[in-house]
Amino acid sequence: MLYEINEKAIKLENQGKKIIKLNLGDPDLETPREIIEAAYEAMKKGKTKYSSAYGEKNLREKIAEYHGVSADNVVITPGSKWGVFATMYLLLKNGGNVVIPTPYWTAYELTAKTLGAETRLVRTELASKWKIDFEAFERAINGQTRMIILNNPNNPTSKVMDTEDMDRVVQIANEKKITVLSDEVYADISFVKTKSILDYDGSHVMVRGFSKMFTMTGWRIGYVIANRELIDKIGKLNQITITNVPVFIQEAALTALGMHDKLTSEIKKVYQRRAKLASKILSKAKLEFTEPEAPFYVFPRRRGLDSERFALDLLDESVAIAPGTSFGDYREHFRIALTVPDDELNVALNKICEAATK
Amino acid sequence: MLYEINEKAIKLENQGKKIIKLNLGDPDLETPREIIEAAYEAMKKGKTKYSSAYGEKNLREKIAEYHGVSADNVVITPGSKWGVFATMYLLLKNGGNVVIPTPYWTAYELTAKTLGAETRLVRTELASKWKIDFEAFERAINGQTRMIILNNPNNPTSKVMDTEDMDRVVQIANEKKITVLSDEVYADISFVKTKSILDYDGSHVMVRGFSKMFTMTGWRIGYVIANRELIDKIGKLNQITITNVPVFIQEAALTALGMHDKLTSEIKKVYQRRAKLASKILSKAKLEFTEPEAPFYVFPRRRGLDSERFALDLLDESVAIAPGTSFGDYREHFRIALTVPDDELNVALNKICEAATK
Repeated sequence: MLYEINEKAIKLENQGKKIIKLNLGDPDLETPREIIEAAYEAMKKGKTKYSSAYGEKNLREKIAEYHGVSADNVVITPGSKWGVFATMYLLLKNGGNVVIPTPYWTAYELTAKTLGAETRLVRTELASKWKIDFEAFERAINGQTRMIILNNPNNPTSKVMDTEDMDRVVQIANEKKITVLSDEVYADISFVKTKSILDYDGSHVMVRGFSKMFTMTGWRIGYVIANRELIDKIGKLNQITITNVPVFIQEAALTALGMHDKLTSEIKKVYQRRAKLASKILSKAKLEFTEPEAPFYVFPRRRGLDSERFALDLLDESVAIAPGTSFGDYREHFRIALTVPDDELNVALNKICEAATK
Repeated sequence: MLYEINEKAIKLENQGKKIIKLNLGDPDLETPREIIEAAYEAMKKGKTKYSSAYGEKNLREKIAEYHGVSADNVVITPGSKWGVFATMYLLLKNGGNVVIPTPYWTAYELTAKTLGAETRLVRTELASKWKIDFEAFERAINGQTRMIILNNPNNPTSKVMDTEDMDRVVQIANEKKITVLSDEVYADISFVKTKSILDYDGSHVMVRGFSKMFTMTGWRIGYVIANRELIDKIGKLNQITITNVPVFIQEAALTALGMHDKLTSEIKKVYQRRAKLASKILSKAKLEFTEPEAPFYVFPRRRGLDSERFALDLLDESVAIAPGTSFGDYREHFRIALTVPDDELNVALNKICEAATK
C-alpha cells in the first residue's frame, strides 16, 4: 500500500495536480553544495574506475575512527538498505527466522519474504509508549531464530528505544547467540541520547547511511559495521552484485563526514521545529501519538480509523500520507513524514486533522 | 585466484612498484568529459533524491527505442552485474540448475554458488575455435535446468558466438522452455556483426552495461531487457536492495547514449589496433589463440603451462594477468586485458612471451 499511494501521488502530479507529499522519508532540503563539488572534483580526477568491493580505504578508516572500531570492521554499501539486505541474505538464506518488533520499516518483511524466511513479529503499542512486551518477545524467539532486527530511532514512530529495553534485548540475544541487526540510520540526528548496538558486547551488526544525516537520499551510500567474518562475506557479495559504490560518491561522503556536526545540527533544528508544529496541531485535533524523538515521522492514531481508506481519500485533498498497515498491523494509525517546508506542512496537517475528525 | 592476483598487484603498487595491470577489464581511457558534466549539471539541479526502482522514464524510453522494445521491458540496474545477479536470484532461488558454456566470466559461477544452485558446465575448446559441442550441451541440460547463460562476445576469449551455434542454443532453449540469459556487455563495441538474444523469439533476458561501451566502469550503470513479468520482479527486488541508481548517474548515461556512435567507434578503433599488436607478438612466440573479435581480451594457451604459477611469477616481472583457471578448467590458458596504452602493452606482451617460452 505504501508504494501504491506513492504511485498514485506521482500520477496525480503528472496530471498537473499539486500534491503535498508526506508519504516518504525524502527530506525537502538539498544536498549541500560542498558535497556535490567533492563528487565533481573526484570525477574530474578520474575516480570513475572499478574499485574495492569493501569501499575506499580512507572512507572506511574515517568511519572506523568515528565509531571506535577497526577499518576491517567497516564495509561501504550502496545505501543502508543494501546493508540490511546483504546481512539478512547472508544470515537467512539457508533457513531460520527473524524476530522484529512492530511497527517496523516495510523493507524488513519484504526482504524476509523474498528470502523465504519466516518473520516473527512482536507488537508494541502506543498506549505503552512503544515499550517491548518481553513475555511476547521471548515467546517469539525459538530454536530457528537467527536474527533480531531493531530500528533505533524507529521508523515510523520516531521513538528512541528505551535503554532498559535495549539492554534486555541484547542480553537475551547474547544468551541465545542470536545476531542483532541494528538499523541506526536516524541515530546521528535524533533529538535525544540514543544508544548504539556498538555500545554492547556480542557479535552484532550495525547499519547506517548517509541519506538521512546529510540529505543524500538519492546518492545511495551507507555502511555496515560488524565482525570481520561478516564484513568479508558482504564484501564478497558486493563483488558479484554491485561491484563497488562509485568512488566519486565515496569522496562526496568523505566530505560530508567532515561537515558532520554542522549538518546534523542543522537537520535536527529543522525537524525539532516541525515536530513541535505537528504535535501542536495533532494535539488540538485530539489525535493520539508519541512526540517524535528523531526525524522525520509522526505516527498518530484515531480509534476506528481505516487508514488505507483514509490515505486514499486524503489524496483527493492533495495530501499524501502512508497508512499504518504498511508498518505492521496498525490500521488505526498513519505515518506523516515532516519532509516539506513549514508552511506547506502547516496546511497539510490541518487538512489531515480536519479529515481525521470529521 | 583472479582476486588474489589483483590484491597482490595493488599491494606491490602500494610498495611503490610500477605494475602493468592486464588482469582486469578496466580500460585506461577516461570517461568522456561531456558525461561527467552531465552528471554535475544534474546534481546541481537537485537530482539527488529517491527515484523509481525501475529507472528514469526518459532513459528507459531511450534504451527501449534503441533496441526496438517497449520501455516496460527495460529496468535500469547498478551495472550489468546486478542485472545478472538479479535475474539468477529470481530464477534460481527456489532451486534448479544453470547451464554455462566455458570459458565463462567468473561471476556467473560465484553467483550460482551463493544461491546454492548447481552449475552445469559445457566445455568449449580453442582447437575448435570455441564452438559449442551440442552433444555435450544437450547432455548438460536436464529437467531441473532453469537457465542457460551466454556471454556474447565472450569474456575471456573475445570471440563472437557463431550464428549457427546461437540459433541452435535458442532453439533448444525454446523447445525445453528454458530462459537464456544473454550477457552482451561487449556487443556494441564488437569488431564483427554480433547477434543479440533480442533477434530471437522466446522469453529470454538480455543484460547490457554502460561500463565498457562508454568507459564508465566505476559509475555502475547497466540495464536488463526482458518480459514485463521479470522486469517487474527486478524492480521490486531493486526497491528492497539498491532503491535506485542515482538519478544524476542516469542523466550521465543518457548523455552517453547521445554520443553512442562517436564513442563506440573510438573504442573499437583503439582495441582493434591493440588486438593486432597483441596477435603479432603472441604469434611470433608461437602461443595459440583466436584473434579477438571484440574488446578487451585475448586468451592464449601454451601446452603444459600452469597459469596460476605463471601469473604469480609474472608479477615479479611487474606484469599482472589473469590465470585461465579463473574462467573454468583452463590451466594452460591465461587472459590478457589490452587495457593499457600501446607502448606499455608492447613492453608487457614481450615480457609475457619471454616468460611463456622460456
